[in-house]
Amino acid sequence: MVNYIWVPIGVGLLAVLFAAYLAFYVLRRDTGTPGMQKIAKAIFAGATAFLNRQYRTIAMLSVLAAVLVACALAFLGQGSQADKINLAWHTAVAFLVGAFCSGVSGYIGMYVAVQSNSRVASAARRSLGEALVVSLRGGAVSGFLVVALSLLGVSILFLLFGGLAQPGIAPSLIIGFAFGASFVALFAQLGGGIYTKAADVGADLVGKVEASIPEDDPRNPAVIADLVGDNVGDCAGRGADLFESTAAENIGTMVLGVTLFQATGNVGWMLFPLVLGAFGIIASAIGVLYIRASAVVEPDKASGRDPSQIAMNQLNIGYYITCAISVIGVFVGSYLLVGQSNVAANMGIPAWVWYGLAGCVGILMSIAFVFITQYYTAGTWRPVREIAESAITGPATTILSGITIGFECVVMPVLAICIALGVSYFLGSQVHMPVALQQQGIINVSGIFGTAVATVGMLMSCSYILAMDTFGPITDNAGGISEMGGQAESVRDITDALDSVGNTTKALTKGYGLGSAALAAFLLFSAYLDVLYSFKHNPAVYRVDLANITIFIAALIGVTLIFFFCSLAIRAVSTAAKAMIEEVRRQFREQPNIMAEKEEDRVDPDYARCVDISTNGALRAMVLPGAIAVLTPIAVGVILGPQAAAGLLMVGTMGGIVVALFLNNGGGAWDNAKKYIEAGFLRVNVKGQVVDASDPDGIVLGKKSEAHKAGVIGDTVGDPFKDTAGPSLHVLIKLLSTITLVLAPLYYFLHP
Amino acid sequence: MVNYIWVPIGVGLLAVLFAAYLAFYVLRRDTGTPGMQKIAKAIFAGATAFLNRQYRTIAMLSVLAAVLVACALAFLGQGSQADKINLAWHTAVAFLVGAFCSGVSGYIGMYVAVQSNSRVASAARRSLGEALVVSLRGGAVSGFLVVALSLLGVSILFLLFGGLAQPGIAPSLIIGFAFGASFVALFAQLGGGIYTKAADVGADLVGKVEASIPEDDPRNPAVIADLVGDNVGDCAGRGADLFESTAAENIGTMVLGVTLFQATGNVGWMLFPLVLGAFGIIASAIGVLYIRASAVVEPDKASGRDPSQIAMNQLNIGYYITCAISVIGVFVGSYLLVGQSNVAANMGIPAWVWYGLAGCVGILMSIAFVFITQYYTAGTWRPVREIAESAITGPATTILSGITIGFECVVMPVLAICIALGVSYFLGSQVHMPVALQQQGIINVSGIFGTAVATVGMLMSCSYILAMDTFGPITDNAGGISEMGGQAESVRDITDALDSVGNTTKALTKGYGLGSAALAAFLLFSAYLDVLYSFKHNPAVYRVDLANITIFIAALIGVTLIFFFCSLAIRAVSTAAKAMIEEVRRQFREQPNIMAEKEEDRVDPDYARCVDISTNGALRAMVLPGAIAVLTPIAVGVILGPQAAAGLLMVGTMGGIVVALFLNNGGGAWDNAKKYIEAGFLRVNVKGQVVDASDPDGIVLGKKSEAHKAGVIGDTVGDPFKDTAGPSLHVLIKLLSTITLVLAPLYYFLHP
Repeated sequence: MVNYIWVPIGVGLLAVLFAAYLAFYVLRRDTGTPGMQKIAKAIFAGATAFLNRQYRTIAMLSVLAAVLVACALAFLGQGSQADKINLAWHTAVAFLVGAFCSGVSGYIGMYVAVQSNSRVASAARRSLGEALVVSLRGGAVSGFLVVALSLLGVSILFLLFGGLAQPGIAPSLIIGFAFGASFVALFAQLGGGIYTKAADVGADLVGKVEASIPEDDPRNPAVIADLVGDNVGDCAGRGADLFESTAAENIGTMVLGVTLFQATGNVGWMLFPLVLGAFGIIASAIGVLYIRASAVVEPDKASGRDPSQIAMNQLNIGYYITCAISVIGVFVGSYLLVGQSNVAANMGIPAWVWYGLAGCVGILMSIAFVFITQYYTAGTWRPVREIAESAITGPATTILSGITIGFECVVMPVLAICIALGVSYFLGSQVHMPVALQQQGIINVSGIFGTAVATVGMLMSCSYILAMDTFGPITDNAGGISEMGGQAESVRDITDALDSVGNTTKALTKGYGLGSAALAAFLLFSAYLDVLYSFKHNPAVYRVDLANITIFIAALIGVTLIFFFCSLAIRAVSTAAKAMIEEVRRQFREQPNIMAEKEEDRVDPDYARCVDISTNGALRAMVLPGAIAVLTPIAVGVILGPQAAAGLLMVGTMGGIVVALFLNNGGGAWDNAKKYIEAGFLRVNVKGQVVDASDPDGIVLGKKSEAHKAGVIGDTVGDPFKDTAGPSLHVLIKLLSTITLVLAPLYYFLHP
Repeated sequence: MVNYIWVPIGVGLLAVLFAAYLAFYVLRRDTGTPGMQKIAKAIFAGATAFLNRQYRTIAMLSVLAAVLVACALAFLGQGSQADKINLAWHTAVAFLVGAFCSGVSGYIGMYVAVQSNSRVASAARRSLGEALVVSLRGGAVSGFLVVALSLLGVSILFLLFGGLAQPGIAPSLIIGFAFGASFVALFAQLGGGIYTKAADVGADLVGKVEASIPEDDPRNPAVIADLVGDNVGDCAGRGADLFESTAAENIGTMVLGVTLFQATGNVGWMLFPLVLGAFGIIASAIGVLYIRASAVVEPDKASGRDPSQIAMNQLNIGYYITCAISVIGVFVGSYLLVGQSNVAANMGIPAWVWYGLAGCVGILMSIAFVFITQYYTAGTWRPVREIAESAITGPATTILSGITIGFECVVMPVLAICIALGVSYFLGSQVHMPVALQQQGIINVSGIFGTAVATVGMLMSCSYILAMDTFGPITDNAGGISEMGGQAESVRDITDALDSVGNTTKALTKGYGLGSAALAAFLLFSAYLDVLYSFKHNPAVYRVDLANITIFIAALIGVTLIFFFCSLAIRAVSTAAKAMIEEVRRQFREQPNIMAEKEEDRVDPDYARCVDISTNGALRAMVLPGAIAVLTPIAVGVILGPQAAAGLLMVGTMGGIVVALFLNNGGGAWDNAKKYIEAGFLRVNVKGQVVDASDPDGIVLGKKSEAHKAGVIGDTVGDPFKDTAGPSLHVLIKLLSTITLVLAPLYYFLHP
């Protein structure tokens, strides 16, 4: 049974090859006109300059963290001195491997994404279909690399750390991998998120508002930094985020699986996430390959249908295919791994079917999240329309209605999470695990494992979702390159349509990332309690009792950490943006020829300096929020003990889920309300009352109206919400889990 | 010992007499010029019209709720049928008494406050000192009535429900009193909060922005509604809020005290909150009486000192006197009640000293909250200055920096709460209660009682704080009456100074209300678990285990409820404001003579119609958020069981504390940032960089500057935060506790 470990390793390697094939497919396309190439090169130079410096900083921090963790575990760990040192060096190595894999997948994915930009812009000169396929495949390089490296990293460490001989020991040695991934993800997401919004705000406030030049205008010194930001924030950041999700979820499930392995002798329970993850990669690959240029109805033959709708439909079909194949994969995987198991279950239905159904719950939950996110952030529904309409009465009402929507939008996703957790737990509980603690009614391992399988199911489509996500910045940049390269309107229509699809897919991925983090949260808590039990052998560790004042205080600190972290992240954007604003103003002042009337008098602004300032600002600004995020749970665990750390973790996670939903969806809704106004859908009658968006007699309140100005203010407020603080919270809540998991021996040493 | 029950009854009755004396003192003052009287009458008519209709609605809802609760307890309660019916009717009666007392104290307090307005405006023509004393004493009527009626209600019900004969039974019968108080408070705060902000936004957006007339201008049709709003939102709302606080805290502590009474035979443990509360009234009365007109340095003799600073100093001195006497009261009370108790305690220090110290922790915490709130909302410190400076770059950065400050300001209060909880628990734990469950290590009753005594200590200054709070709307209205009555500038300087002090004290009271709610939260949970134990006699009820999936889900729903409730509350303001905006526009359109150039052509706008529209809007809009707040915890308790209800309660409370801090302080900081700009403190040099507020070379960015416009937008966004959603959350978190306390028998019946 343990030989099934070769499935994820084999599929992981194939996925790397597949990513290479996709990269090759994209890179051999033509790179467009010299004008396009020039801009693409500038973006590429800026992005690599930032990532090089960012990853250098992160690498130093990672080595420092690895050394500190190793020392803490070696001196203040559990068991004999040999045990301590054994755990310490394994954890440190796993940490560094996790950090390295996360960095590599982010880096290569970003490389290909940046290279895809001009190729998509060039393909858009020929057809919508070709542009769609090139951008999706360019994005898929990152998607498959992230998931494959996460799977390979865990599987190979499992092999190297003696998983074949002692499968029950290996998972506890590779927990460091998840912590390494989290650690890198936190700084990658924070740094990228701060960079992108500082550049965006700087470019908009001085360029659009003060100098009155359009978006993506080559005269704006910050324009390249802005385009670079889309890549380093969205691509690299979200890649690191989901790398962390899959790593944490795989390892958490394996830790839970150890208990089941020890009780049943079947190592299949431990390999569940890896094998199903491998099947998910296959399902995602089929989904990506299904989308072909020939199936896309070109705009000139579409009899007026919206090209972005056509493109979105294609992506949706690919997603549904991925989900459908995942369902098959869940059942096949369950059968192969635990089908032979003679574990009893209710109603005469075998265990593998119950867990197969639990996996389906996860897949359904991912679809539910996609729909709910669309409802709250797409212009066709009430929330965005409500914000757009409130823009008529000015910025204050725009902000208030966005915050109202943001607070409201928490409800449906949380109910979806609660239902998914409850149902998958119920399905899992139908299996009677021969675990002593379960038979004594202390924990319900089979139910918890049900939630783990649901998380695995949800994350099976991860590669596909990530491909759609990276599609976002690629098409965004392609639009910028078309605009700056002075392409014909028909070409820009295609890139604009893809860009608008990209905005939707980026929002969906955030919803998906958060949903999977929320679903994984419960299994990660449980894994932590399992680890504590392995030291203490006292069932009391399974109680995280809020009526205990220490745990109560820790929990309160957990919610507070979420708010404080958001404050620091948003403030970091303001700080970095201020430097950018001053630099853009300086360039306009000192080199008036940037804005010269005649084309031939014009000089290029100094793009590189803006890129540099954004880079420095982002790297400096990411340190404080990152440090607070890492040190608070450690301080609580060290001072108040392991159960208090669990309380902080759980309630902090709940707060994080809710606040991240507020920030992501609120920000997304403001963004799309502005776009709704720009598209001319906000119409009023002579009395000033709102009429239907398609009413031909309606007076359009479009670009440059007062309502549009209010919409722009809403969008600016929402930017750091949805692109810096919100996504960083996803990472933070997983980081809380992985830190506590790794440092459990230390907390227990100090509070035996 | 049980005869000490006459202390709170005696002091309560004296406090009612004292309130009557204060009311008499205020009412016999002159009511100013005919112009002042006319406006004061209009405000009075509007406020009573609103309160009459509001309390009629609330009365109907209360009777309905009382019947439903009684039926639920009579049919689905615990024990024999006689027990069930006994509990049911006692609870229903206590509920109605609580509701009635809350309503009466709100109503009379508001009556006197509204009557004080014109008297303060008139007194300001004579001196600052007289105006200060009249407004404080006018506010104190409400303050003493609220606390006295709360104390009398609980004490007399205790007597009537057999407290002398069976002190161990009575507390469980009067829990309904706290629920009744919460129920009324929820709707009073929501209705008042919606009313005040709908009127304010309507008056500002059409009057100030569209018609460009100053604030409090008599030509604005919504101006009276706006002044009415200050009374019904701030006076009546906060009064109901703190009535609920004291009621819930008194009853919760008495429920805890039952366990100690049963173990020690000393009923003093149960009477703790009542007797100390009585001493607190005495301390507050001395504090209020200490402030005399003769001690105030008049502006003409103040050699340039800021009159608002002089007034604030006086109020602070009164507050410190109250706190100092409270410290004495805590120790005297502890000694009288439990000094003879032969309960062992550590270090040879008797129990009454340990609990006296715990009470001091609460008093210190109230002072800490006052300082922290000042730091975040007063213009002299970094947070407000930071927001004011960000207004230079426009509304988007103003909003972002306000939200940054709002998120940040959570940290210090939460740390203060954690320290106060931890220290008072530690102090209490030094006492060795002869309680079996404590000796078995299942619960730590003495520690929990320590937190209860800290809460009692914090609430001792409640009357004084409420007097300062109601001082706010009185001086605000007095300012409006002076402005509209065309008083001389020297008079308006005095009312303006008092108004600005009132803004500070209103913010402080919110902080105080929230701090006491947070401190009370832990003891209310514990009381709930005690009630569950009294049915189940199983120590497992004392575990609220987040690792249990049902409790985890309930907890997640708890945080979500907080966000959803805020969304509904803010949306309610927008809805009600929209109706107001349309009405003001209609009046300006249909009756142009309101704005006639010549004084003699002018006609008065139809104030009453605006008052009516605000009233209808607020009453309609308060129902949905109120219903969601009441029904969600019931639904969770009924469906998921009593332990899940505890999870919702605890994590919902944590979320509520943090979100309310964010809303209150964020909103307060925006408000004061606007005032900071209006006061001319925001100055820049020629390069546009911010310079010191006192720099004589600085260019002042004051009223009508772009920065000021951005500041006004921030203030408008903050209005429903700090005056509707935030204060309603205070009420909500206590409501969660009182609902679960009252319905515990039902939850247990359904999930035995």
